[in-house]
Amino acid sequence: MLPYKNLLLIKKNSQVAVFRQIATQFIGLIQEEKLLPGTELPSTRALAFDLALHRKTIMAAYNTLVAEDWIESLPRKGYIVSPRLPEVRPRSYHANRLASYQSAPGFMFKTLENFTYPPSSIRNANLIIDDGFPDIELLPKEAMLNEYRRVLHKTDLKKLNSGWDPEGTPDFRIALCEFLNQTRGLDIQTANLLTTRGAQMAIYLAASLIVQPGDKVVVSDPCYFFATKAFEQLGVELIAVPVDEHGMCTDIVEDILSKHVIKLLYVIPHHHHPTTVTMSTERRNHLLRLIRDYRLAVIEDDYDYDFQFQYDPYLPLASGDHDGNIIYIGSLTKVLGTPFRLGYMVAAENFIKAAAEWRILIDLRGDVFMEHVVAGLIRNGELTRLIQKANKLYRERCHFLADLVHTKLGDVVDFKRPNGGMALWLQFPKDFPLQKIIKKSLSLGLGIAGSTYTPETNVSYNAFRFGFASQHEDALEKAVEIFCRSFSR
Amino acid sequence: MLPYKNLLLIKKNSQVAVFRQIATQFIGLIQEEKLLPGTELPSTRALAFDLALHRKTIMAAYNTLVAEDWIESLPRKGYIVSPRLPEVRPRSYHANRLASYQSAPGFMFKTLENFTYPPSSIRNANLIIDDGFPDIELLPKEAMLNEYRRVLHKTDLKKLNSGWDPEGTPDFRIALCEFLNQTRGLDIQTANLLTTRGAQMAIYLAASLIVQPGDKVVVSDPCYFFATKAFEQLGVELIAVPVDEHGMCTDIVEDILSKHVIKLLYVIPHHHHPTTVTMSTERRNHLLRLIRDYRLAVIEDDYDYDFQFQYDPYLPLASGDHDGNIIYIGSLTKVLGTPFRLGYMVAAENFIKAAAEWRILIDLRGDVFMEHVVAGLIRNGELTRLIQKANKLYRERCHFLADLVHTKLGDVVDFKRPNGGMALWLQFPKDFPLQKIIKKSLSLGLGIAGSTYTPETNVSYNAFRFGFASQHEDALEKAVEIFCRSFSR
Repeated sequence: MLPYKNLLLIKKNSQVAVFRQIATQFIGLIQEEKLLPGTELPSTRALAFDLALHRKTIMAAYNTLVAEDWIESLPRKGYIVSPRLPEVRPRSYHANRLASYQSAPGFMFKTLENFTYPPSSIRNANLIIDDGFPDIELLPKEAMLNEYRRVLHKTDLKKLNSGWDPEGTPDFRIALCEFLNQTRGLDIQTANLLTTRGAQMAIYLAASLIVQPGDKVVVSDPCYFFATKAFEQLGVELIAVPVDEHGMCTDIVEDILSKHVIKLLYVIPHHHHPTTVTMSTERRNHLLRLIRDYRLAVIEDDYDYDFQFQYDPYLPLASGDHDGNIIYIGSLTKVLGTPFRLGYMVAAENFIKAAAEWRILIDLRGDVFMEHVVAGLIRNGELTRLIQKANKLYRERCHFLADLVHTKLGDVVDFKRPNGGMALWLQFPKDFPLQKIIKKSLSLGLGIAGSTYTPETNVSYNAFRFGFASQHEDALEKAVEIFCRSFSR
Repeated sequence: MLPYKNLLLIKKNSQVAVFRQIATQFIGLIQEEKLLPGTELPSTRALAFDLALHRKTIMAAYNTLVAEDWIESLPRKGYIVSPRLPEVRPRSYHANRLASYQSAPGFMFKTLENFTYPPSSIRNANLIIDDGFPDIELLPKEAMLNEYRRVLHKTDLKKLNSGWDPEGTPDFRIALCEFLNQTRGLDIQTANLLTTRGAQMAIYLAASLIVQPGDKVVVSDPCYFFATKAFEQLGVELIAVPVDEHGMCTDIVEDILSKHVIKLLYVIPHHHHPTTVTMSTERRNHLLRLIRDYRLAVIEDDYDYDFQFQYDPYLPLASGDHDGNIIYIGSLTKVLGTPFRLGYMVAAENFIKAAAEWRILIDLRGDVFMEHVVAGLIRNGELTRLIQKANKLYRERCHFLADLVHTKLGDVVDFKRPNGGMALWLQFPKDFPLQKIIKKSLSLGLGIAGSTYTPETNVSYNAFRFGFASQHEDALEKAVEIFCRSFSR
């Protein structure tokens, strides 16, 4: 009999259960031919004694080995190594096992180049200034718990389980469709609506259906980072159009359209990201005409529509006359908070159908449970109340921060007070050492997240988004104070 | 003054708010040049009287038009059409507006060909037999509500809002990592783990990183439909390897590897989908050797691991010696139920990093709130208890259905009693008119969903998956009864 006491090494504080450690090491011994087919194993009692373990642990190990055909249990004889084993290889299944995931794989795979995302230093800062996140403390917690309870205790809960609605749960689409018609001047049916995990998935799906590698896509300069990154990964050529105080320059768009075949235009007419500019009515009408004349596929990203501090917002382009060419994209994540992911796409019915089929391949379908919960929040008015409450608060914070920046940084910063949204776009003079000051601020405990995922083209702006919506006034004050402390005038 | 009473048509039962209808129609009148720049508008009082509406509604409409620059409010003069309007186009912004989403867009886009999904006739059947869904009634509802409450009332709720973890919420990854190590004989770190919406997203991400259009990918024949569809959409050439009672035929895989450059192999060693076959130890060892020798990138889809009716399951290939070349994919959706979407990918650290970056572009990140809830269910043991409870019940249902099929259909059906999972794979003789009988069953109220998304190659099997896990015994009995009634012997 082998000296099992020495051969079987048990790590008591390993995450792998002891019986599994034993089974795995027996497999190693069999594969290394230290245990040959037909060899008798020690009795569970004897091995338990040798290893100072409970006999049940050994039995669990042996049962595992039996279930996996490595050993056999013979009546009145005990356990033997299976005589029917295939030829074993000298290299053990076990020996390198624990290291299998600790080295790089041997095959080739793609990685995204120059992909910047807030580094852990910023994610772990004491005070993080985001680029425009909502304040999650505003959530109607009890109302949400009531919805969770209602959905979990539905008498037809089983129906939620059928799970074949890649376009979104019917219940949720009906509620969301009504909400969008009422708030955005749309007149759509549920067939025009696909719900997604968030706006990003809607952007990815829409672009995937429209572009091929090598196609030309018009975006703004600067532009929402994760949209341009997604387009780049789809292999397209980006043509960037400047944004001035009236929004994307549509004259330049017209010029480009007359010279190139443009497959897709991506536009954020409302509170443009990152600049917060809202496109003028004149430009909107011009763009709508171009869309119709050129049958131009357009993604209208309206992530920020619900946050308007004035009486009534601009309606989206999608509510205008575009012959069905606008794919309108929005998100409830900006309302509920970033821990909840829920977006949508509005488009012509046949486009929605194609997008839903594509969605199956990358995600099957949405989270039906959550969609039912949010449908409830829309129907009982909680979502609208949350938006109203948030607008009131965000407007105060916006003015507080704007006043503060004007007072403390007015000599070096250029910014426009936005009429809604969740962030200020702070622009600094070309010779202002912004990147250095952001680093210095970090050493003082302030992480400015919105400064890190600006693409290279945006760096030339020497600017960043200062999110005010998620922070109390004292935190905003503290952030500005640290930022100011990071440089001397 | 224009005859506004006739020009402005108010639909009281429209989904568009009345004030918005009025505003939109004013825009139409301005664009059609029926109202010229500088024209005075009727007072709110007068128009309210004309239209028999409340004055507040008219004020809301005018405020909207002011906010959008269409009209101006002059002190002591009332409202006039903005004199600074751009040249208006004769074609109204309004006229076709309501119809914008009702026609096909003018641009070209991709659609997926031959994409079959359960048609609404099956989705609306009285009794739906799925292809292997869990029983959502088993959910620990109170424990889940406690977790929802716990997470919503966390004192550091704000921290959940930072939202920069495309690899998954740290809390959830730690809990899931431990769970996987304990149940699957893995010894991974959180850096080896990416959480996704479900297994499908993990499959899509992994394949996207590994293959280019034109590459060759080995799959099984038959194979999980949505995986092969995703590979096809990535433009690869599929090479299908037969599955027999010992699993995928690895001799044939070896032969293919010696003749072609294979970029990826997709395998479901455990309860293969659709056939429910579990791969033998011999084949597993053979495949592991091939993976090492050829540095072969492998997706191991282990959707069904947690459902084992016997004492102890086969460990995944990923727990063996594969030099980091296996991308191991699983799902908690099969445990929690289809309304909850939560999957994961286990791989070498640098692969996980690349996959997380790709994930940002299609989805930004997961649902942080839900990930915290499920982390709680893992830590307090509820998830494990749910799996144990489910296994006990599914085993009973499996045997009940197997006995029933044997008794009632034994003369025409060929099937193996699986040792786990959620479905039987029922194979019928070549000349058995299965498709006709499925249609007939549907007319009698029985929808067999698993029969509809078999790819063309699978139709030759004349077979379908009969999910037993989600159905009470009386429903299983009813389903078999209707199926039998649909044909005469």
